Amino acid sequence: MSEINTRFHTGAPQKLEERFAARASQMLPSEIRSLFAVASRPEIVSLAGGMPNLSALPMDMMASVVNELILTNGAEALQYGSGQGHPKLRELICDVMALEGIRANADDIVVTTGSQQALDLISRIFIDPGDVVLVEAPSYVGALGTFRQYQASVVHVEMDQDGLVPQSLREAITVTRVAGRKIKFLYLIPNYQNPTGVLLPADRRTEILAICREEGIFVVEDNPYGLLGFDRPSPNAMRAEDSENVIYLGSFSKTIASGLRIGWALVPQSLKDKLVIASESSILCPSNFTQLTIANYLTHQPWRDQIASFCEVYKVRRDAMLESLDEYFPKEATWTKPGGGFYVWVNLPPEIDTKAMMPKAIVAKVAYVPGTAFYADGFGSWSMRLSYCHPTPERIREGVKALGHVVHQEMNRRGSALN
Amino acid sequence: MSEINTRFHTGAPQKLEERFAARASQMLPSEIRSLFAVASRPEIVSLAGGMPNLSALPMDMMASVVNELILTNGAEALQYGSGQGHPKLRELICDVMALEGIRANADDIVVTTGSQQALDLISRIFIDPGDVVLVEAPSYVGALGTFRQYQASVVHVEMDQDGLVPQSLREAITVTRVAGRKIKFLYLIPNYQNPTGVLLPADRRTEILAICREEGIFVVEDNPYGLLGFDRPSPNAMRAEDSENVIYLGSFSKTIASGLRIGWALVPQSLKDKLVIASESSILCPSNFTQLTIANYLTHQPWRDQIASFCEVYKVRRDAMLESLDEYFPKEATWTKPGGGFYVWVNLPPEIDTKAMMPKAIVAKVAYVPGTAFYADGFGSWSMRLSYCHPTPERIREGVKALGHVVHQEMNRRGSALN
Repeated sequence: MSEINTRFHTGAPQKLEERFAARASQMLPSEIRSLFAVASRPEIVSLAGGMPNLSALPMDMMASVVNELILTNGAEALQYGSGQGHPKLRELICDVMALEGIRANADDIVVTTGSQQALDLISRIFIDPGDVVLVEAPSYVGALGTFRQYQASVVHVEMDQDGLVPQSLREAITVTRVAGRKIKFLYLIPNYQNPTGVLLPADRRTEILAICREEGIFVVEDNPYGLLGFDRPSPNAMRAEDSENVIYLGSFSKTIASGLRIGWALVPQSLKDKLVIASESSILCPSNFTQLTIANYLTHQPWRDQIASFCEVYKVRRDAMLESLDEYFPKEATWTKPGGGFYVWVNLPPEIDTKAMMPKAIVAKVAYVPGTAFYADGFGSWSMRLSYCHPTPERIREGVKALGHVVHQEMNRRGSALN
Repeated sequence: MSEINTRFHTGAPQKLEERFAARASQMLPSEIRSLFAVASRPEIVSLAGGMPNLSALPMDMMASVVNELILTNGAEALQYGSGQGHPKLRELICDVMALEGIRANADDIVVTTGSQQALDLISRIFIDPGDVVLVEAPSYVGALGTFRQYQASVVHVEMDQDGLVPQSLREAITVTRVAGRKIKFLYLIPNYQNPTGVLLPADRRTEILAICREEGIFVVEDNPYGLLGFDRPSPNAMRAEDSENVIYLGSFSKTIASGLRIGWALVPQSLKDKLVIASESSILCPSNFTQLTIANYLTHQPWRDQIASFCEVYKVRRDAMLESLDEYFPKEATWTKPGGGFYVWVNLPPEIDTKAMMPKAIVAKVAYVPGTAFYADGFGSWSMRLSYCHPTPERIREGVKALGHVVHQEMNRRGSALN
């Protein structure tokens, strides 16, 4: 007995953190995370967060939806539900996706706790440690964090003002395979991408789908912003064109309310059962209460008009941001001109380190997200993401003005340091 | 280029299922899962499910709670929240846990999408493939599924009518370590265990905690049923006695409403940050809406009285089940006498295969869960879990009577087959 204990156990209880699994070393705080505590102070104009603007959502209407739900169907709404998600909601999700050209069967949909959970489950099902995931350069910070936790290697693929560059995708595939690495999938956000706000045009969607089919790589299409086009409707979803090789992720966080935490995955039939089992193991089932709140809202309320109202809210804010950038940012800076969504991506001269500049911005009472947060490889140091979704247009102007001043100062300082 | 493609890629796109990660082979449907479709037919008396009985929950009160929440605090309730969970709810959770002797700091609580998500995250943080998790024999099917997905080896530890047997725990630890295996933690449900309904007495809790400390194994205490004692209060939680070596999982699914999907983990301080990061990667944040529904309910409604009402509902059902078992089951069968919770565990003579018997039970219009579902090792073939939580007492009597008849027939058939 004592021999055994000596051999396998030192006697002194180990600390919890000494017993972590290997993957836990990849569970690291994101750059955004530490930032948000500061950015949420009321005196700071936060151009950092991606919180939807709920000012256009009529709260009396939402209150009546939930009140009615409990009174008429409380026993179901407050009970465990199906691991795959409520059938009524899955039917309605088909109607929502039809707006972007998708013809889907409700049976191929799995409802998730926000589309973040879908990302997590897809990673769980597909990623062995060391597998490669191709992503846009830059890409969504929450996706990068999830891929990292499953010990994937992230390979960024070049973007331009029209999104992912097909030729760069071909090259990335070749180079990755030459290095002997296994590519599992391409993850991308074709509409008003986070963090750049750019839109992938229809012809590129077709070309990228063809490349991926040809190369035996499947596509994870993440589409939280597709219905938030301000100037014209978005092109059809990539899933509309390819139902076999695309896993589509949707979300109500930006079109209804993020606090309900309802997203979904539309998957090829061969994947559905695994996805449901993985989800049951992860959360047992999504909330019937928030699912039926959305189902009743979609059934009884003018949800298309509501999305149009949201678009109005965001469009004036986008305009305020682009106008202020023109007015207050140095001529050396460039930025994207989003046609929808929440974000503008700004490139400063390469000698500026946006992470190092953050404390000065905070002193000037404005916050943003440094570009490095959106890269897995340390790139992005002279870029920043500015979000216009949440503050008022006046506050946006105020924030961009203050930030422009900080950037000018930083450029002058760097300029003098170089002389 | 063509050489590269030939070398790394066959040309024909692989099927999705050929690209799964190694862990996906462990994502298997549980025995309960396939059963529930059948058991939910209205003509079947389901003694299979673990759905809480919401008949005692006043729906007009719940409707007014959610209505009021949206009208007074909709902008927060419908917005993204903190990854760790809402501070107001975490404070109130401390009050709930105090009923079982726990003194906790709200900062050490992480709110999850049901306690299932906490189980998933704990597994993610601690389990490397091949690590051993010790569990009761039998144990909760949902925990077994999650441990399997993280490629843990599950080692069952003997129970008796007073729960986990401390001496068997010592032996299991020794045997496992002699085999060169690494034990990560002990998972157990001390109160009205799922599936057996047994209660672990206070002295055994102390002894098990001492063994685990001594052996450098931490304890995951899963406690969904602790406040559902019908005859007397449960002993203090194990976490009340050891704040360093116990991870405590709680849930509102059985004391308020499962459809809100709110559970929590109370963890040693050194684990909290990792747990929050893992949860953010998994779901970004739990629903503010359902969290604040619970927070407002706990603040403004007589929730202790409501739990007492639930206990009344379950107690009459437990009594109906135990009385009918006495009346209709053969004298060779034995079963547990739960003092709370949802479940009775029945052992039949070993020649009975409860899984093979299921179709006959369904024909007799009654459903249960075969014992093998609660073992990772194929054991349990002559046992079954009967739940009394959901049907009316009349239906429970009807179901147990029908099932007793099936069991008698099966014993006779086996008897004649042996002659």
